[in-house]
Amino acid sequence: MSENQAKVIAYIEENQAKLIAGLAEAVEIPSVSGDASFRAEVYKMGAWLKNRLSELGCEVSSHDLGMQELDDQEVQLPPVIVGSIGKDTSKKTVLVYGHYDVQPALKSDGWKTEPFELVHDKESDRLYGRGSTDDKGPILGWLNVLEAHQALGLELPVNLRFCLEGMEESGSVGLEDFVVQNKDKLFHDVDAVCISDNYWLGTNKPCVTHGLRGIAYFKLLISGPAHDLHSGVFGGVVHEPMTDLVRIMSSLVSPQGKILVPGIEEQVAPLSDDELKVYDAMEFSISDIDNSTGSKSTISDKKSDVLMARMRNPSLSLHGIEGAFGEPGSKTVIPHKVTGKFSIRLVPNMEPSKVVEAVQKHVESEFSKLNSKNTMKLIPDHPGKPWCTDPKHWNYEAAFAATEKIYGVRPDLTREGGSIPITLTFADALQKNVLLLPMGRSDDGAHSTNEKLDLSNYIKGTQLLGTYLYEVAAVSE
Amino acid sequence: MSENQAKVIAYIEENQAKLIAGLAEAVEIPSVSGDASFRAEVYKMGAWLKNRLSELGCEVSSHDLGMQELDDQEVQLPPVIVGSIGKDTSKKTVLVYGHYDVQPALKSDGWKTEPFELVHDKESDRLYGRGSTDDKGPILGWLNVLEAHQALGLELPVNLRFCLEGMEESGSVGLEDFVVQNKDKLFHDVDAVCISDNYWLGTNKPCVTHGLRGIAYFKLLISGPAHDLHSGVFGGVVHEPMTDLVRIMSSLVSPQGKILVPGIEEQVAPLSDDELKVYDAMEFSISDIDNSTGSKSTISDKKSDVLMARMRNPSLSLHGIEGAFGEPGSKTVIPHKVTGKFSIRLVPNMEPSKVVEAVQKHVESEFSKLNSKNTMKLIPDHPGKPWCTDPKHWNYEAAFAATEKIYGVRPDLTREGGSIPITLTFADALQKNVLLLPMGRSDDGAHSTNEKLDLSNYIKGTQLLGTYLYEVAAVSE
Repeated sequence: MSENQAKVIAYIEENQAKLIAGLAEAVEIPSVSGDASFRAEVYKMGAWLKNRLSELGCEVSSHDLGMQELDDQEVQLPPVIVGSIGKDTSKKTVLVYGHYDVQPALKSDGWKTEPFELVHDKESDRLYGRGSTDDKGPILGWLNVLEAHQALGLELPVNLRFCLEGMEESGSVGLEDFVVQNKDKLFHDVDAVCISDNYWLGTNKPCVTHGLRGIAYFKLLISGPAHDLHSGVFGGVVHEPMTDLVRIMSSLVSPQGKILVPGIEEQVAPLSDDELKVYDAMEFSISDIDNSTGSKSTISDKKSDVLMARMRNPSLSLHGIEGAFGEPGSKTVIPHKVTGKFSIRLVPNMEPSKVVEAVQKHVESEFSKLNSKNTMKLIPDHPGKPWCTDPKHWNYEAAFAATEKIYGVRPDLTREGGSIPITLTFADALQKNVLLLPMGRSDDGAHSTNEKLDLSNYIKGTQLLGTYLYEVAAVSE
Repeated sequence: MSENQAKVIAYIEENQAKLIAGLAEAVEIPSVSGDASFRAEVYKMGAWLKNRLSELGCEVSSHDLGMQELDDQEVQLPPVIVGSIGKDTSKKTVLVYGHYDVQPALKSDGWKTEPFELVHDKESDRLYGRGSTDDKGPILGWLNVLEAHQALGLELPVNLRFCLEGMEESGSVGLEDFVVQNKDKLFHDVDAVCISDNYWLGTNKPCVTHGLRGIAYFKLLISGPAHDLHSGVFGGVVHEPMTDLVRIMSSLVSPQGKILVPGIEEQVAPLSDDELKVYDAMEFSISDIDNSTGSKSTISDKKSDVLMARMRNPSLSLHGIEGAFGEPGSKTVIPHKVTGKFSIRLVPNMEPSKVVEAVQKHVESEFSKLNSKNTMKLIPDHPGKPWCTDPKHWNYEAAFAATEKIYGVRPDLTREGGSIPITLTFADALQKNVLLLPMGRSDDGAHSTNEKLDLSNYIKGTQLLGTYLYEVAAVSE
């Protein structure tokens, strides 16, 4: 370990109170992007970050992404905050992505503490608060690394670029275009990308992540009568759209999670014995899932099955029905127009266009079996491809080495079941290696009540990000 | 026709403008029972009726039914207005039921006119306005009959009792208990009941109605995880409640409307050749249904099939799912707890308790096939029995004779697909014959936008109600 690297680690260790205070400041700004009444707080959070990055020696710019409609209002999108520090062409340049917006949170949702107040529970040594782990903790981690270097009078081992958005929890509206437009401008000298916005697989062992599932989202519309009907008068008389819809929805996936649409599972990359061994070796148990779901609901009780279901197999989930009676109570309506919502998580080597085609063919075939006078229409959203990168790259080697130095273990190499579309945008637009290097644990409850970040994850995670930069500088391309 | 009878008919014919003005006054009071913010208007409507009945010579009392919770408020239930005129023991006593509350209506729902203003469209000769046909038109019909007698200085041919409620559109809360408690008090001398709160089968020919379907409403709850899950992380990993629920819902009814729960259709009264002839003879065509639904959605294109589906066969409708994603947009949630809502319309000789039992057995059997770790629970609402009375009764004879005198045709004898639970309450509590004698047509749009009552239905309907009273007096028991 280099002398500077050691000094940075020690600084972080010794200045924990100051680092917690910084995260507390960030959590206190309720930067909820999905609610128009909080939009001023999102701007405030962007301005706070711009100011901090500037104090820490970055050149910073704020980029307007235009307007959006939200809660029946036209509102300005939160800006992308771009920071830049270091222009030394002999050093590598790392682009860091993070997001400064958060999910909504109300004490009445079931929080034990005020959600927009960072509470350090001394007994568990956890930091509770909305955004603590998603994604203000990791962003502060990067700021802490800059602060350590500034305080110690040290130069950074690499050039850093920051791309921080305020719309991740609300679909990253406008970001993809922004990245593509700036690939040869703001991001022209980037050598690799690092994103800290996911979680360890369990609660004990760190991981680095090299894959994400994609997603194809579908709306299946069945319509018949011109308006809702009274089931007393018309029940048994007309073809009911709900009857048709649940038939088709029940033909998509088995209760054991098997996708029943022909031509989907056939596209999945075959499993080799070597790959299977990877899952067997991962630090993980079924109880990690049970703790997260608060139930015993896993389809399989075998560790490798569960891990493969999440990381390398597709899945099909039924989300709900729009236009039907969804409120409490006992309404006797025949809904005239209902839209089933479902999505398929995509993995290598599935082709989104082939998946959409297979679903179209299947629902047409199933609908024709019903002999219904209703009409059916499948409306696919624009699908997101799966992302999976080769971890035999210096960016990953640096992450492995840094993790071993901070945590004393070789991290698990994982893939995530979810989708972070911007990952693919960075990979495709910049044509550079992208690494996911998480700070928090699987039980942090990112979108849930009582979101937390363990203090040790915050401190060691900050050390990890700093150490990773030194390892990037040290590793040969 | 008696001299008095003829005078009353003539009075109604000659005073149309006055009768329309009376209905306009009633429609102008937006007595929406399902919205707490309109509750004062419901009271106002009750007071208006109490005052009118009193002016027309009735003894009137207003009966408090206690409190209810509505829109998160405790509000007073609208009172039952009870009127009484005539105590001549040599005359028959008829109990009239009606309701003075209405469905909600907003111009922005698609009304061509202000919903709470009675608009006489001269071209079509229709009276548009919320409540015009359901049920203020029929109530005004009865008041008009009283007014004609008062103006003409005539005695009524029968004793009349009125039971007018303000909660029919919101479940008639409290009314059943009220009727049962007062069967030997307010209603002790009632000989027969007449309800004008349904519609002609089509648009040309009047009918009298002697049957209603009952209803058994079910909530089917499937739950697994302790909270909603992210389909990226958990899709394919856990048993999803939605997958289980749509499987079971799709096992209940075929797209052709056949109930697939064993032991239900077996309970239906067999169809005789004579009964079939009744449907063949009714004035009705498939286009009446198509006009009502704004589509060509009938399961059968055969008139008798459609009529039997509505009047004498059970049906099963799927209303919706509570707890799933029902909003517009593309949310990728795995709902953790979903409740499917469905109901079965009951006909003779179905036993509600046997129906509930059969559904319970069926869903348990279907759920066990799924091999799911989720849990299932069936929650049946209190079922309402079907009602079907023998029309060979003087009450019906009077209605037939009156219809022939006013409309010049023998009315169709129909059964309705819907349920009016209070009908059964009157029949069971008072043990007297109940007659449904509609005023409006099938296309009046009772719960819809642009509700209307044809002027001819209002005027002839008023004459019909008056004439019915004379026929009741004349017919031998």
